[in-house]
Amino acid sequence: MPVGTQAAVKGVLPRDLMNDLDAKIILGNTYHLFLRPGHETVRQLGGLHGFMAWPRAILTDSGGFQVFSLNSLRKITEEGVLFHSHLNGDPHMFTPESTIDVQLALGSDIMMVLDECIEHPATYDAARHSTQRTVRWAKKGLEHFKRHDDGNRAVFPIVQGSMYGDLRRECAEQLVELDARGYAIGGLSVGEPRPLSLEMTEITTPLLPADRPRYVMGVGMPEELPEYVARGADMMDCVLPSRNARNGCLFTRNGRVLIKQTQYKDDARPVDEGCGCYTCRNFSRAYLRHLFQAKEMTFSTLATLHNLQRYLDIMREIRQAILIGKYPEYLRACR
Amino acid sequence: MPVGTQAAVKGVLPRDLMNDLDAKIILGNTYHLFLRPGHETVRQLGGLHGFMAWPRAILTDSGGFQVFSLNSLRKITEEGVLFHSHLNGDPHMFTPESTIDVQLALGSDIMMVLDECIEHPATYDAARHSTQRTVRWAKKGLEHFKRHDDGNRAVFPIVQGSMYGDLRRECAEQLVELDARGYAIGGLSVGEPRPLSLEMTEITTPLLPADRPRYVMGVGMPEELPEYVARGADMMDCVLPSRNARNGCLFTRNGRVLIKQTQYKDDARPVDEGCGCYTCRNFSRAYLRHLFQAKEMTFSTLATLHNLQRYLDIMREIRQAILIGKYPEYLRACR
Repeated sequence: MPVGTQAAVKGVLPRDLMNDLDAKIILGNTYHLFLRPGHETVRQLGGLHGFMAWPRAILTDSGGFQVFSLNSLRKITEEGVLFHSHLNGDPHMFTPESTIDVQLALGSDIMMVLDECIEHPATYDAARHSTQRTVRWAKKGLEHFKRHDDGNRAVFPIVQGSMYGDLRRECAEQLVELDARGYAIGGLSVGEPRPLSLEMTEITTPLLPADRPRYVMGVGMPEELPEYVARGADMMDCVLPSRNARNGCLFTRNGRVLIKQTQYKDDARPVDEGCGCYTCRNFSRAYLRHLFQAKEMTFSTLATLHNLQRYLDIMREIRQAILIGKYPEYLRACR
Repeated sequence: MPVGTQAAVKGVLPRDLMNDLDAKIILGNTYHLFLRPGHETVRQLGGLHGFMAWPRAILTDSGGFQVFSLNSLRKITEEGVLFHSHLNGDPHMFTPESTIDVQLALGSDIMMVLDECIEHPATYDAARHSTQRTVRWAKKGLEHFKRHDDGNRAVFPIVQGSMYGDLRRECAEQLVELDARGYAIGGLSVGEPRPLSLEMTEITTPLLPADRPRYVMGVGMPEELPEYVARGADMMDCVLPSRNARNGCLFTRNGRVLIKQTQYKDDARPVDEGCGCYTCRNFSRAYLRHLFQAKEMTFSTLATLHNLQRYLDIMREIRQAILIGKYPEYLRACR
């Protein structure tokens, strides 16, 4: 899922996300949109779909992750989390119920429950304590959602448990009892070694219903996507394709192109000769390097279009391999 | 003409310039492209048209204006102008012949001769001296071009003369003898009062061939465009629509919208209800304000698309009014 934190995928217009990339779903950020422009403003202006002219699906996270990563002055109680705006310092409270209300105002198709995102590394006791609270909050959030459920949206609970397999299992088993329309695996990509993220995913996914989406939050590198799918992931989101694009790192079928390198100065080839994106169909590496060096914002747009295409192409290849029953072969070829 | 200084119109893809805006010609900058990525690099990569994937017309200035505005250490001789790169301090020389060579390498459709751009205000003697040199350089540039002329491009001499009507007249008369395919009026928008820019244009245009394009360089505000046309201008270029867009100033049929103002916080209307651009068809002022406040680069793209559409719409209205013989009425309605 391309990431559109503040109701915009940086550098790419909604029509290009649709017509060029054929993205089916994008991600918005509850914390950021709650603070600015405010969820009531978004609701008045047609929800996120109307506000940002995106007619396809939107998933919003609960804001929990940002409350924990952008706020040093937060205070957690059983009721919820008190935090200060990173924009102006104003105090706000997120509760399991209020984050659902905010996401309903945003008009999300897939909402996330409020979870406690614990730092890494965490002690076993801290992780257990935090995971149990995440389960209680998930129950409250889903109960609250049921009062507003029109059958057209979903709320996903989030499996936490830090890097402790037994906590992950216990959390997953308890959340499955909530009979949600889909499940997420959170608390990964928080600084742990990458094999550990895969291991936690592998432990968790078999416990989640196979007939419902399983969403691994915040991963991953292009080469990791097939690995997560092999472990049961149906959905992933990551800022990497767009953020790396803006920093001049382009993903290709033959590895990365760091566009500022002198070797691309006169390189007439497209970034990726096997890619069909607008950037690769029309522009040379030399042109992209020139734009990057000249700090032209058009670079960010062209690079993001390409990197998102690369990610979505990988997911399309994966779906195709699964459909024709050749996923093991595909995975081997990737490794 | 939309301005694409460094082989990119900031924030707008070439396909959008073509499909959305139907721009027929854009402007590139010889000084900037000479320094980076270098005209020989651009030549190798298919000229500016191939390099930036723009199949329609390209006009390049001679670089004279930037040499004078970006360089404090320049040295002018009869041969040309010695200057230091604003990027790394390297010394370079532009001569009337070399700037044509650079523009031929860039593959411009319309090239400009090297001119001396004198500061404003200038004494009469300094202006006369400088204008005479500009005429001599124009002769040299055009003679040089004749040896490379394939009949598919043009070189425009530039009328200078500071704010002295007799110098403007004298310069225009001498340049007309060169029998060029079009003419430009330079040395305006250099800090003089706006009525004076119009007066200098009005003095000059009647002396230039009516059957060839007359290009007033570096103007103007939206409300000024009909005034320049009324005085004989066929072409204009200006960074205002794109630069102001990025700074949050949007031009509409009812004046300017400064998007950061609180009054637009919940404003569901498009920027300009009479505008058919992608931005106005799909997004509210409230959304654009949100993007501006959140410093999302998508703001620059949407705002630039709108402002360029506004400018090109004005020029389309002007052409239509002229074609149906109602230009005086149109002009009165504008005032």
